[in-house]
Amino acid sequence: MNGNGVHHVSVRTHMSMNPAKLKSQRQRWNVKPSEMSKKTLNPIRAIVDGMKLTPNPEKPMIALSIGDPTVFGNLPTDDTVLHAMKEAIDSHKYNGYAPSVGYQKSREAVANFYSCPEAPLEGKDVILTSGCSQAIELAISVLCNPGDNILVPRPGFSLYKTLAVSMGIQVKHYNLLPEKSWEIDLQHMESLIDDKTACMIVNNPSNPCGSVFSKEHQHKILSVASRNCIPILADEIYGDMVFPGCDFHPLAPLSIDVPILSCGGLAKRWLVPGWRMGWILIHDRNDIFGTGIREGLVKLSQRILGPCTVVQGALESILNETPPEFYQSTISFLKSNSEICYSELSTVPGLNPVMPSGAMYIMVGIEMEHFPDFQNDVEFTERLVTEQSVFCLPATAFEYPNFFRIVVTVPEEMMIEACIRIREFCARHYRPRSQDSHELDQ
Amino acid sequence: MNGNGVHHVSVRTHMSMNPAKLKSQRQRWNVKPSEMSKKTLNPIRAIVDGMKLTPNPEKPMIALSIGDPTVFGNLPTDDTVLHAMKEAIDSHKYNGYAPSVGYQKSREAVANFYSCPEAPLEGKDVILTSGCSQAIELAISVLCNPGDNILVPRPGFSLYKTLAVSMGIQVKHYNLLPEKSWEIDLQHMESLIDDKTACMIVNNPSNPCGSVFSKEHQHKILSVASRNCIPILADEIYGDMVFPGCDFHPLAPLSIDVPILSCGGLAKRWLVPGWRMGWILIHDRNDIFGTGIREGLVKLSQRILGPCTVVQGALESILNETPPEFYQSTISFLKSNSEICYSELSTVPGLNPVMPSGAMYIMVGIEMEHFPDFQNDVEFTERLVTEQSVFCLPATAFEYPNFFRIVVTVPEEMMIEACIRIREFCARHYRPRSQDSHELDQ
Ligand SMILES: Cc1ncc(COP(=O)(O)O)c(C=O)c1O
Ligand SMILES: Cc1ncc(COP(=O)(O)O)c(C=O)c1O
Repeated sequence: MNGNGVHHVSVRTHMSMNPAKLKSQRQRWNVKPSEMSKKTLNPIRAIVDGMKLTPNPEKPMIALSIGDPTVFGNLPTDDTVLHAMKEAIDSHKYNGYAPSVGYQKSREAVANFYSCPEAPLEGKDVILTSGCSQAIELAISVLCNPGDNILVPRPGFSLYKTLAVSMGIQVKHYNLLPEKSWEIDLQHMESLIDDKTACMIVNNPSNPCGSVFSKEHQHKILSVASRNCIPILADEIYGDMVFPGCDFHPLAPLSIDVPILSCGGLAKRWLVPGWRMGWILIHDRNDIFGTGIREGLVKLSQRILGPCTVVQGALESILNETPPEFYQSTISFLKSNSEICYSELSTVPGLNPVMPSGAMYIMVGIEMEHFPDFQNDVEFTERLVTEQSVFCLPATAFEYPNFFRIVVTVPEEMMIEACIRIREFCARHYRPRSQDSHELDQ
Repeated sequence: MNGNGVHHVSVRTHMSMNPAKLKSQRQRWNVKPSEMSKKTLNPIRAIVDGMKLTPNPEKPMIALSIGDPTVFGNLPTDDTVLHAMKEAIDSHKYNGYAPSVGYQKSREAVANFYSCPEAPLEGKDVILTSGCSQAIELAISVLCNPGDNILVPRPGFSLYKTLAVSMGIQVKHYNLLPEKSWEIDLQHMESLIDDKTACMIVNNPSNPCGSVFSKEHQHKILSVASRNCIPILADEIYGDMVFPGCDFHPLAPLSIDVPILSCGGLAKRWLVPGWRMGWILIHDRNDIFGTGIREGLVKLSQRILGPCTVVQGALESILNETPPEFYQSTISFLKSNSEICYSELSTVPGLNPVMPSGAMYIMVGIEMEHFPDFQNDVEFTERLVTEQSVFCLPATAFEYPNFFRIVVTVPEEMMIEACIRIREFCARHYRPRSQDSHELDQ
């Protein structure tokens, strides 16, 4: 053997004598993203990133896709809200760490704001979170183990599935019924329940439907939960954002026994989604959650600590001092835009908009058989961008093909212009049904 | 059979015919907190909540336990920082959603602030997070799978273990050496590495030690990582908070091959921990993380979206306009308080303080054999409250018994008074070594 061979042997011998080296058979770099990060899938991103979104250069782009009411500047938050923030800064009192569940005073402010005789709340029943998103994350995290399943609405907000799947929790979709103003198909919902069902998510008012449940319907939802002993995560981030003539009923005051984690925040009603202020309201009058769930939430909150203390410091004034006219004017704007959009699109052959009662969205059904140029809602909305520079989210992003979602927070003239363009687009691609043509043939 | 029996049978028959009912054998409420919430353990809370902390009513309480520099009001943030926040509010530009990884402009501001020729950074290399805590959470989440292990310092900041254990990741502690100014025992560190080691956490400057690593020592740490192909999570939240005469060397510019996720934030250096502004700097000059880790971080950030947009909007001004005198005066205060504390306590029989070089902490060793009244550091610090109304965290909270940690951000007169009381307390409980008494006996 040559000298090189000997040298190799001696190196190996040396290594086998060093236990540290022996154990670490790591001779090359191999850094891979974790399974959890790979399982954290955002369907909206997946779909939108896969679309060819090249607007028509002759027409300015109108984005009816973004669930951010602030982007066009026509829906500013109230001055009271901004003033409260500046006062919080000037007070010099809100720079340090707050308790991980939030300042007691801020939690009490939220409790007072939402408390009612049927479902009283105290500061201890409120957990402040980094946006409603983290409220949902904590609520799912405390109620579910890997291998459990949760019931979520279809169509529905995609974050529920994104979070659950990343945690190894199975998602079962219950149907909403467009012909019944998007009420829940309760029989379908109940048929999904099994021994591993850890929670039902009920989103009211709804993203993407803009629907608002009646008291009676919510009583029936509660019956399903009660009969099967399943706690509810109520996503009420659009709470109170309902059009005149319709009432919002928070779920908890209607519940006799079902324990409810109600998730909300400043994002939508106060029009400051970027501030990341959310909360969980713990409703548990029959002591079914007990201390376990409460302590679990506190522990989970300690992972990253609470929301920005300046916003926490401003919270009491924001909730108590924002004038009612602010809420009313937001709502009447959303209603008026919804009506414009609904009445425009309901006379477009091939489209079936469903009139909303709240939130900031309209769902529009596409009679795909009349649009043979497109395979599905994704292609339909993609071409709507190419030809008309109007972007609506295909409802496949909400697990609901053959619909698209329109955001109604855009300025009125944009809404009108968008509807004209959608009409033009549909007129161009609409084909009478093959059945109709058959009839003509006969 | 009586009518009742028949009735029961018919009910059962009915139920067995309804598949929904059949599946849901959930006849009673049984809502339990998830395993993950139960596994989210905060040792500081566990230890402190278990202590009897009844101060001596004759002496006002002095808390040297809280790692929040703002609590006593003697270390306010700079006016520039507050002014930047108010400008961000007045601009009306920072109320909507930012991208989940932060505004591009804010990411670029952080990149510019930390970029250097050896380790250049661009906006795309920065992920903004809700505090450094979430930066650490995302970094661990993207690098590790359940069943993997990570190396963390002992003594060390407890959040690493809290997060890892809750995710099913094993924690292996490598020793820091008090006699070597808390340098890492590199041999011990390397001996812990095995095929399942997914990352090493290096915290510099250190909580709880206040130590600052030399360039040379960091080169050696990098060698261990490089030899074993292990990426590093560098927790540099106390970066640049080092005393005159000592230099802070961020780890990344010293690295040739080892990929590094450097975690930081506004909390400590800018004295606004409540604002929850943190970041991850992705250092990967040899493209070992590749796109996988970057995309994984982006996906994970979409779970709860980024930090408060107002703080993001203020970030550029905060980083670029805060005057150097602000940092200098914070540091010289911390140094002066550290020196007072160190020189006071190093002449107390039975105590061995270790002089820090940065951050805001001093570790003090207790010669337990001289304090037979107490079983351990927890009892020692508990009684220090009962008798002297001075509260220091027992270092058992950092997995390091027989030490306690003092926070040096308190006003100088409090620091002095606390040291006097600690001296009194020790004098009262100090017993000469049994060896010494033997000598007397002989
Ligand atoms: C139904 C629903 N829930 C929760 C959220 C998240 O709210 P936040 O921005 O406060 O995290 C949204 C945001 O669009 C939503 O539509
Ligand atoms: C070493 C260390 N890392 C991270 C953090 C968390 O920082 P933040 O408050 O920005 O989450 C702390 C807070 O005390 C710390 O001491």
